[in-house]
Amino acid sequence: MSSTLVAQPETRTERKRRKTRDRLVSAAEKLMTSRPIDDVQIKHITETADIGHGTFYLHFKSKYDILVPIVRSRAVTWDHAIQQRVADMEDPAELMVFSGRHMSRLIQRDPIWRWFLKHAGVPVDEMRAAIGPFTARDFAQAVRAGRFNIPDAQFTSRFLFGAYVSSLLESFEASDPERVIDLMMELVLRVLGLDDHEAAEMAHCPLKPL
Amino acid sequence: MSSTLVAQPETRTERKRRKTRDRLVSAAEKLMTSRPIDDVQIKHITETADIGHGTFYLHFKSKYDILVPIVRSRAVTWDHAIQQRVADMEDPAELMVFSGRHMSRLIQRDPIWRWFLKHAGVPVDEMRAAIGPFTARDFAQAVRAGRFNIPDAQFTSRFLFGAYVSSLLESFEASDPERVIDLMMELVLRVLGLDDHEAAEMAHCPLKPL
Repeated sequence: MSSTLVAQPETRTERKRRKTRDRLVSAAEKLMTSRPIDDVQIKHITETADIGHGTFYLHFKSKYDILVPIVRSRAVTWDHAIQQRVADMEDPAELMVFSGRHMSRLIQRDPIWRWFLKHAGVPVDEMRAAIGPFTARDFAQAVRAGRFNIPDAQFTSRFLFGAYVSSLLESFEASDPERVIDLMMELVLRVLGLDDHEAAEMAHCPLKPL
Repeated sequence: MSSTLVAQPETRTERKRRKTRDRLVSAAEKLMTSRPIDDVQIKHITETADIGHGTFYLHFKSKYDILVPIVRSRAVTWDHAIQQRVADMEDPAELMVFSGRHMSRLIQRDPIWRWFLKHAGVPVDEMRAAIGPFTARDFAQAVRAGRFNIPDAQFTSRFLFGAYVSSLLESFEASDPERVIDLMMELVLRVLGLDDHEAAEMAHCPLKPL
């Protein structure tokens, strides 16, 4: 077996580096859940983590950058809860809709996610890295099952990513954010080739709680 | 007639202010079409316009901000050319597709528009101000004509805005950008309630030149 294919044990330097990074992320998350995110400065994060100010920039480019692992880890937790409720769903489209409606509601209610998405100057690539994996997995599953009818899976996913972020931002300002999320899901299903009637029915049916 | 309803003549101060702003915009456009946009600095713009450096910030917040009137004025010119070709189109959906396919091709080929859209840290509101009016007019016309079947016009337009920007960014990286633009239009038509077959046909039919 080629040694390049075997996971190398972490060196002492790598372990130290990872621990420093983890402490910065924990400190940032702690601060951001206890005060307005706009008020959290990088110096507060390094002080709370008890790490030198300059060290922050060895790990992250900006305050925005350190939000990426935080929002991802929250989404991983939510996704885990969602996955436990979909085991008995046979239709991959139904699974995607259930997952999308719940995940969007959780994002819409989370102050850190809201700040992350609303923050002017969002680097699109980092936003895709944070959101992409969850939508992509269920999407790919339904495409493989032939449940959707789309002309180009890669492009369709890029099209929907932009629509999704724009819709979430709209939901943040809406008097009825859940209605906006379900409308979004209805239009997503149209894009995926479901007819108008089925799209509306699936997106607006009563949503089983998590 | 109430005086508040009558356009007030421009005062001397206002005229002077507008002329300064116009000179800054012209200088920026001239520089940005003659060298890489990344290399154009605000001091180059004020030097070319022969205006004090600080004056720039009385009119614009940033180099990005001064791009908004430039990309808008280019889009106005293109839109004018497109409108001259659609006078005989009876179907508002056909008009929207023709306009969207051409406008997107022109944006995709324009270095200033590309920079504007690709620039990390795009303030979404300003981008909507630049793109919105053109898409909104044709869209509203087709909605009024009952050509589309959508659950909520305002939300649908916000959903499509995100999808549109994301798709244009994808076209910038594509080996065949026109194919990506037409795929985008196909998915837009699905969102608007056309069936898959009609959407594909309208989005990929041979495009009459401008």
